Amino acid sequence: MKKTALIMAGGRGERFWPKSRKNLPKQFLSLTDDGKTMIQLTVERILPLVNMEDIYIATNRDYKALVQQQLPEIPEENILCEPVGKNTAPCIGLGAVHMQKKYGDAIMMVLPSDHLIKYTSIFVNTLSDACEVAEQGENLVTLGITPDTPETGYGYIKFMPDKTLGRAFAVERFVEKPNLETAKTYVVSEQYLWNSGMFIWKVSTILNNIKTYLPDTFEGLQRIQAAIGTEQQETVLEKEFYEFQSESIDYGIMEKAKNIYILTGAFGWDDVGSWLAVGRIKASNEFGNVVDGHVVTVNTKNSIIQGGEKLIATVGLQDVIVVDTEDALLICDKDSAGDIKKVLENLRICNQTKYL
Amino acid sequence: MKKTALIMAGGRGERFWPKSRKNLPKQFLSLTDDGKTMIQLTVERILPLVNMEDIYIATNRDYKALVQQQLPEIPEENILCEPVGKNTAPCIGLGAVHMQKKYGDAIMMVLPSDHLIKYTSIFVNTLSDACEVAEQGENLVTLGITPDTPETGYGYIKFMPDKTLGRAFAVERFVEKPNLETAKTYVVSEQYLWNSGMFIWKVSTILNNIKTYLPDTFEGLQRIQAAIGTEQQETVLEKEFYEFQSESIDYGIMEKAKNIYILTGAFGWDDVGSWLAVGRIKASNEFGNVVDGHVVTVNTKNSIIQGGEKLIATVGLQDVIVVDTEDALLICDKDSAGDIKKVLENLRICNQTKYL
Repeated sequence: MKKTALIMAGGRGERFWPKSRKNLPKQFLSLTDDGKTMIQLTVERILPLVNMEDIYIATNRDYKALVQQQLPEIPEENILCEPVGKNTAPCIGLGAVHMQKKYGDAIMMVLPSDHLIKYTSIFVNTLSDACEVAEQGENLVTLGITPDTPETGYGYIKFMPDKTLGRAFAVERFVEKPNLETAKTYVVSEQYLWNSGMFIWKVSTILNNIKTYLPDTFEGLQRIQAAIGTEQQETVLEKEFYEFQSESIDYGIMEKAKNIYILTGAFGWDDVGSWLAVGRIKASNEFGNVVDGHVVTVNTKNSIIQGGEKLIATVGLQDVIVVDTEDALLICDKDSAGDIKKVLENLRICNQTKYL
Repeated sequence: MKKTALIMAGGRGERFWPKSRKNLPKQFLSLTDDGKTMIQLTVERILPLVNMEDIYIATNRDYKALVQQQLPEIPEENILCEPVGKNTAPCIGLGAVHMQKKYGDAIMMVLPSDHLIKYTSIFVNTLSDACEVAEQGENLVTLGITPDTPETGYGYIKFMPDKTLGRAFAVERFVEKPNLETAKTYVVSEQYLWNSGMFIWKVSTILNNIKTYLPDTFEGLQRIQAAIGTEQQETVLEKEFYEFQSESIDYGIMEKAKNIYILTGAFGWDDVGSWLAVGRIKASNEFGNVVDGHVVTVNTKNSIIQGGEKLIATVGLQDVIVVDTEDALLICDKDSAGDIKKVLENLRICNQTKYL
């Protein structure tokens, strides 16, 4: 069966401020040493399985030009611009109705655009196995990540070690972000995996599930599909999207649906959730510093220093994140990386939107 | 007797990098909330005692334009440019021969251009008393600072509590920068004061002392004096200065001379020796931060953040110094302020002189 992919690229990536901005979010940044942007890497790594012309990008209008610039080989009609963000369920539904119109049915991989995967070949292997499971019956397949810490920032998926289908395990349930104590029991139990937000299913399967669990959204999607290729395409899309209920695919479908399977693989996943990730991803020097740009360090250790032309001199620092851009500079203790959003809140309150 | 002043303004002020640069050293920076530069404040505070046209500035050629720009009321012929820095003894000698030529004799106050004094009226009072002591006989007078910590960065002066002349105490000896243990005994003894580098004497007195203790320098100074106002003025100055032995007034004269007196006063002296001084001088906010420019702080305490137009956001920091300029940014732990010179060494080694 034809394989397609929907890459979701509508996020704002505030945790990478000040490099990531409203008009240049994380997925369009290069955070790796190879100079490629996150979304370019996302496309590149699935090319062994999917043709370029069968890859769809879901984003919003503000980022269409960025997508075209960074991914010129993606056909323009495959760039699906949501008129307004309504979380992942309407976004995935939009991709599905486009694919249904074009292919009838197909395998659809749903992938975030701002994660990193270190071992591409292992990932492609796992994804290929997932496609096989998805092609059978009405299975919804997801990729899970073996948790190595009791993360409270991810959803977890409980799987049934005894109920397998090929390399996949049947899923018992999806659980939302747990507190630390619960997360610890999950990690110890060895029956929970992190929810990576990567899904594989047939277009027909996900649309059937949307019809069952989100019937209003399904009807709107039908009207959007009917208008594709007509003069009303944009008008209908806009009208329906504004009326859609905002809903995640996890809560709207996965927590309720049947026939869910999960595959896992040691493919070196990283959700690149904050500047701390850059310390893991990029090569560090002998002092544990990850340095870009024109930097002089004196007694500086385990720090992330990302600059450009301007000379940055650091003296007597450790575990600090420094990110310099043309109009804004961030200096943040590593332990406080989660508080970068407070800077943005402050800027919003003071109406300094040009820095967002 | 006519009162004159020689303000020494040839220093480089590396400890205030990156605001202070080779072409804009500390004495020409404003480090106070009033916006006035250090040298402007130095001139302003002695105006109750000295006429503007009797104030001399010793500097080097590179800074002549800066002096003229910041102190337009100082007569151009009072700006004495040393062809090369030879420490304080030749510099003071140069001032003295100019003053002798113009006034015959006069009271000469020698003042650094890059210190701050909080209580101007108390300072002027003390300086006025010092002038009276200097006018008598052949006295060399200096201002001492009551030490409140065992500083190892200053010279100390031992005075004789029982031997006074007006408000002045006779000086027993000058001692160079001590180690910490010695400094502690000095502070406890209550017989030592910090050497502030401020001197008051008659022009004739200091020239007599130079003649006695630095006879070669004295002869050179005589030739320089003879050439003042002639076509050879610059040529002779250059020739003699390059031949002068580099010598501080402390080591060359004060450690050997007789008739030294010291006055002290609670005039709130600060030598503004590093960025830490800015934390003392400038008003801090409720979190103990001294902030200039466009700054957003989140959980940031006791820090010095000096920026400009660029937005600086700090998150989870304390006791940090951040100084942003157009082409260079410094981020330094307060405890490491003394290591800023290592940045400059590094830049010199890498031949990046444009940042010095």
